[in-house]
Amino acid sequence: MSITKIAKDLGVHPSTVSRALSGKSGVSDKLRKKIIEYAEQIGFYPDARASSLRRKGKTGTLGIVVPDVGNPFYAEAIKSMEDVFYSHNFNFFLCVSDENPDKENFHLKNLISHRVDGIIAAPTLDKKTETFYKKIAELKKPIVFFDRYIPSLDIPYVVTNNKNGIIKLLKYLLKLGHKTLGIVSLSPESITGKIRLESALEFSKKFEIEIKPNWIQGFDSTQESGYLSMKKILQLKNKPSAVLILNDLTTLGALKAIKEMKVKIPNDISIVSFDDTFWNQIFDPPITCVKQEPKEMGILAAKMLINLLNHKNNLNKRIYLETKLIIRNSVKKLL
Amino acid sequence: MSITKIAKDLGVHPSTVSRALSGKSGVSDKLRKKIIEYAEQIGFYPDARASSLRRKGKTGTLGIVVPDVGNPFYAEAIKSMEDVFYSHNFNFFLCVSDENPDKENFHLKNLISHRVDGIIAAPTLDKKTETFYKKIAELKKPIVFFDRYIPSLDIPYVVTNNKNGIIKLLKYLLKLGHKTLGIVSLSPESITGKIRLESALEFSKKFEIEIKPNWIQGFDSTQESGYLSMKKILQLKNKPSAVLILNDLTTLGALKAIKEMKVKIPNDISIVSFDDTFWNQIFDPPITCVKQEPKEMGILAAKMLINLLNHKNNLNKRIYLETKLIIRNSVKKLL
Repeated sequence: MSITKIAKDLGVHPSTVSRALSGKSGVSDKLRKKIIEYAEQIGFYPDARASSLRRKGKTGTLGIVVPDVGNPFYAEAIKSMEDVFYSHNFNFFLCVSDENPDKENFHLKNLISHRVDGIIAAPTLDKKTETFYKKIAELKKPIVFFDRYIPSLDIPYVVTNNKNGIIKLLKYLLKLGHKTLGIVSLSPESITGKIRLESALEFSKKFEIEIKPNWIQGFDSTQESGYLSMKKILQLKNKPSAVLILNDLTTLGALKAIKEMKVKIPNDISIVSFDDTFWNQIFDPPITCVKQEPKEMGILAAKMLINLLNHKNNLNKRIYLETKLIIRNSVKKLL
Repeated sequence: MSITKIAKDLGVHPSTVSRALSGKSGVSDKLRKKIIEYAEQIGFYPDARASSLRRKGKTGTLGIVVPDVGNPFYAEAIKSMEDVFYSHNFNFFLCVSDENPDKENFHLKNLISHRVDGIIAAPTLDKKTETFYKKIAELKKPIVFFDRYIPSLDIPYVVTNNKNGIIKLLKYLLKLGHKTLGIVSLSPESITGKIRLESALEFSKKFEIEIKPNWIQGFDSTQESGYLSMKKILQLKNKPSAVLILNDLTTLGALKAIKEMKVKIPNDISIVSFDDTFWNQIFDPPITCVKQEPKEMGILAAKMLINLLNHKNNLNKRIYLETKLIIRNSVKKLL
């Protein structure tokens, strides 16, 4: 199965076969078509690695790095990135960090070794990871962050305006008379979780909403953490009137706990969530939340990366997407 | 940034650097460590493509092909495959077919050109796709199918026992006295959808459950199709007493339609679904269904591929996973 065999079978010169398959000129369209079709028929595909070596490092491949592919937020973002990459003829490696900086760094090393043309990542918050992304940026390898970023690095990103999202939720709670607030928080490796929590603490102080230390629960960004955290809050003697849940999967877990403990929303407790995934609408009652735009975020980040690959440097390199407050029936009116 | 530079900076011979970085013998562990660390420090990573060419086609890369990454079933399966692949030091390209055979074939060609060591795929049902997988198999490239398969091809697979799953649901409906059944069906490109529909038709005949032609609705495997199909069924004058929904996303869409039209489950209509995704439990009432095992399926398929890569050929190449009937409160007792 080789160029020589194709040349022999079709009665043409091997260099003609090579020119036809590599897209070079000097072959008629008709003959090129014939050669390509025959090559496919006998199962001969030009080696992308060999030709990428000839193209000096352009491989037509990219890397996407996410903490969790089972989180619908990332699944949705990957889906829209895939659309953009496919329309530009790029393939991508999917790398999952599991919020583990060592795993993330292993993947990044691999991506570099496979000579991807660029990387799009929702990075974990970690000193080693920071150093590693810095090195990659110094190699002039285009990187775009999405959903999360690393504040110390000059790497372009598309993220949600998390602070504003939290303010919207707090203002809404305040308007309905809530003055005490519990929080189901996220992984310490997640900068989005960190910003959301800090914003909640900052603005609840400003708005005179009380948050007692044991009203803040949560150890990571999973369903399990949401479930256990909400249980803890509901078991307290002295409970807040409302609970703010910081992402989609923790909301799902929290909803399971609420259902299991037969607590009534909003009569027994009011709930608001960051993220608007499927289940917010179909839960009874449906959940008030701020909606992010994972689809939009994926498209923008993917296009930003494509632009960087094409050496367009006059880009807006800090894109903040605003959230949308969606009022449903999960908050009790106290005023 | 090159081997020469590293050799010069560390005062050793270039061949020593080369041996150290490529894992060959003849270098002390201490010196190897020093060289690797220095290489990383200055941002030099051995080219995986070049070394893979030397290793005669072993690239340490795989391809995963799915119809939709936004479907939690596939997201969950990918997540568990990733675990297995990571523990065996494999990276993978993620390819999304969107149920489009042309897109799928484009991706398959690319995977071959990138010389992946193996492919794991949930294929669409299409003549061209069939031909293409056949060719890949003839190239002795290991392939494993999961969730779906192509009946005419001798390619190993891990799938759900869809027929048995449908029988479990029909028997349960029958036990509660349902003799008329609507169906929200799936994409014609999905063999799982096809088998589920055919099994429902076959066994409802056997069990004397009536299915009128206009009680079968659905054009693809999405939320949108589930939503529109359920609406159509609910608007009929002459409705079935129960509706069988054939996958998770169509169930989600159907639940939205039911909620919107203020139809009460199970009093106005009974519902059973194939797949047990998050929302079945949190919907009010929770939905009776048969549960598949995407996590288990992903692990088994990934391990099967790893075994094929290691030339273990004494494998069980047809794995059927049984479903589990989960009885909740979405079916009315008529008897």
